[in-house]
Amino acid sequence: VLVGPGDDAAVLEGGIVLSTDMSVEDVHFRRDWLSPEEIGYRAAAAALSDLAAMAAEPLGVLASLAVPVADAGDFAVRLMAGVSEAAGDVGTVVLGGDLARTAGPVVLDCTVVGRAARPVVRSGARVGDEVWVTGTLGGAARAVHALVTGGAPSAESRKAFARPRPRIAEALWLARRDVPTAMLDLSDGVAGDAGHIAAASRVALHLEAARLPLHPALAASEESGRDAAIAFAAGGGEDYELLFTAAPGRVDGVLAEFRDATGTPLTRIGRVEAGTGVRWTDRVQPPPRGYQHFTEAP
Amino acid sequence: VLVGPGDDAAVLEGGIVLSTDMSVEDVHFRRDWLSPEEIGYRAAAAALSDLAAMAAEPLGVLASLAVPVADAGDFAVRLMAGVSEAAGDVGTVVLGGDLARTAGPVVLDCTVVGRAARPVVRSGARVGDEVWVTGTLGGAARAVHALVTGGAPSAESRKAFARPRPRIAEALWLARRDVPTAMLDLSDGVAGDAGHIAAASRVALHLEAARLPLHPALAASEESGRDAAIAFAAGGGEDYELLFTAAPGRVDGVLAEFRDATGTPLTRIGRVEAGTGVRWTDRVQPPPRGYQHFTEAP
Repeated sequence: VLVGPGDDAAVLEGGIVLSTDMSVEDVHFRRDWLSPEEIGYRAAAAALSDLAAMAAEPLGVLASLAVPVADAGDFAVRLMAGVSEAAGDVGTVVLGGDLARTAGPVVLDCTVVGRAARPVVRSGARVGDEVWVTGTLGGAARAVHALVTGGAPSAESRKAFARPRPRIAEALWLARRDVPTAMLDLSDGVAGDAGHIAAASRVALHLEAARLPLHPALAASEESGRDAAIAFAAGGGEDYELLFTAAPGRVDGVLAEFRDATGTPLTRIGRVEAGTGVRWTDRVQPPPRGYQHFTEAP
Repeated sequence: VLVGPGDDAAVLEGGIVLSTDMSVEDVHFRRDWLSPEEIGYRAAAAALSDLAAMAAEPLGVLASLAVPVADAGDFAVRLMAGVSEAAGDVGTVVLGGDLARTAGPVVLDCTVVGRAARPVVRSGARVGDEVWVTGTLGGAARAVHALVTGGAPSAESRKAFARPRPRIAEALWLARRDVPTAMLDLSDGVAGDAGHIAAASRVALHLEAARLPLHPALAASEESGRDAAIAFAAGGGEDYELLFTAAPGRVDGVLAEFRDATGTPLTRIGRVEAGTGVRWTDRVQPPPRGYQHFTEAP
């Protein structure tokens, strides 16, 4: 074992990368919020995102599903179709799984396996590095907030929540050029996840709230203004974008080529400094109460 | 993907072998029957047994656990200690996992990864081959029967149920010498599992009930006689012994050496014939009602 528990995934000799992600009904998802296909898609995408975080090429997905007897037919088949679609969208397949009955909530466990020639871990950030993020932030959190408060999310924020796209291609592109010094995927929000790179690399991440790339759904929908949008982008989870550090100027040199190759924006949001933890240039509010995302371990 | 869904495990290029096994409280185990350590041990051993079935050397275990908030402390720690012990007993480690909360029954999903130079699959049995089994059969089923009917299982049958030993060393020993032509691990009982080799290999397995190696707990405890003991050995699940086929005389030539190396008995229980399905020389009763083992998919 080259990289053990504590990073986004385990890495074995030969560069085999493994990660597992469990989703529980009414904790991580609700049936009245998502179709069976979306439940499966989202769970598999979240697991595949851990491969992106390590810059690993996916080799396959294993999906274990516990369902009540009444859901063993159509519901289970549709959910597994969503798992299969998420795998297909990043060029991989479902390798196998298990089906069990339960008297309780639906539980779906997705295990992903991949291969990384040079896995990117959380511990490589150096003082002076820049902090970058792929895509835009806060879309999924905005959808969850709408659902929790009884509203209807916009189509684009709903899609960010229901069908997140693991940034596999982006991670592989960057890692092939040795761009990231440290990387992870944003499952709990920048504000929290940046601390994992800081801790593993024994540095501080100094972030600028004004630079956070806001999901289009935030820009359009926040009556409460820019502070609320930033709160979602900084503190909202489940974006599954990549947060990475890179030597100064390294990303600028490949920025245009990256966008041409992937179509995904890259935004510099801060800098690595000596110290510990995450610092913000500006005061960042927590997301509004009522937004509680559903991935907290007990 | 070299071997996909349908065998005991998936096999990727490079001989990476993967399998996953989900255990649900009150379906696959009961808390009043097993300690938390035993619940974890048994689930991990069942998953590792799928690596034995493919003659794969274990590289690690991933364990995802959903528990009620009240069990996130001591119970979860003890359960994971059992998973870790099962991994250690076959020379491997826990690589990672996930912890989720649930409002329902405990769910444990164990994914195992291994490597096999030449994986043994279910489809290689040839007409004329002999059918062999490791160890003894029916011990776990006898324990479950005692627990279901309110009795106390003997210490040795309880151990067979609570801490089954995956036959990794035995599988590797046999595969290194190219002994098995087809192999699987007995999770549902010989009577059912033999049919999987028959179907995959397009042959018939002709089994002799009188040859089944009875677990010592059966020999000692069956007031109802030899027929009942054979019923447990043939139809009882969760033995996690290996069932394999081999060319005529091939096992006899290595039998003494195998027993010296592993300490595990090998018993010839039948022969591969032309045809389909499983045939018995003698009439075999189903296990007594009240024995219902807990691994049936919905």
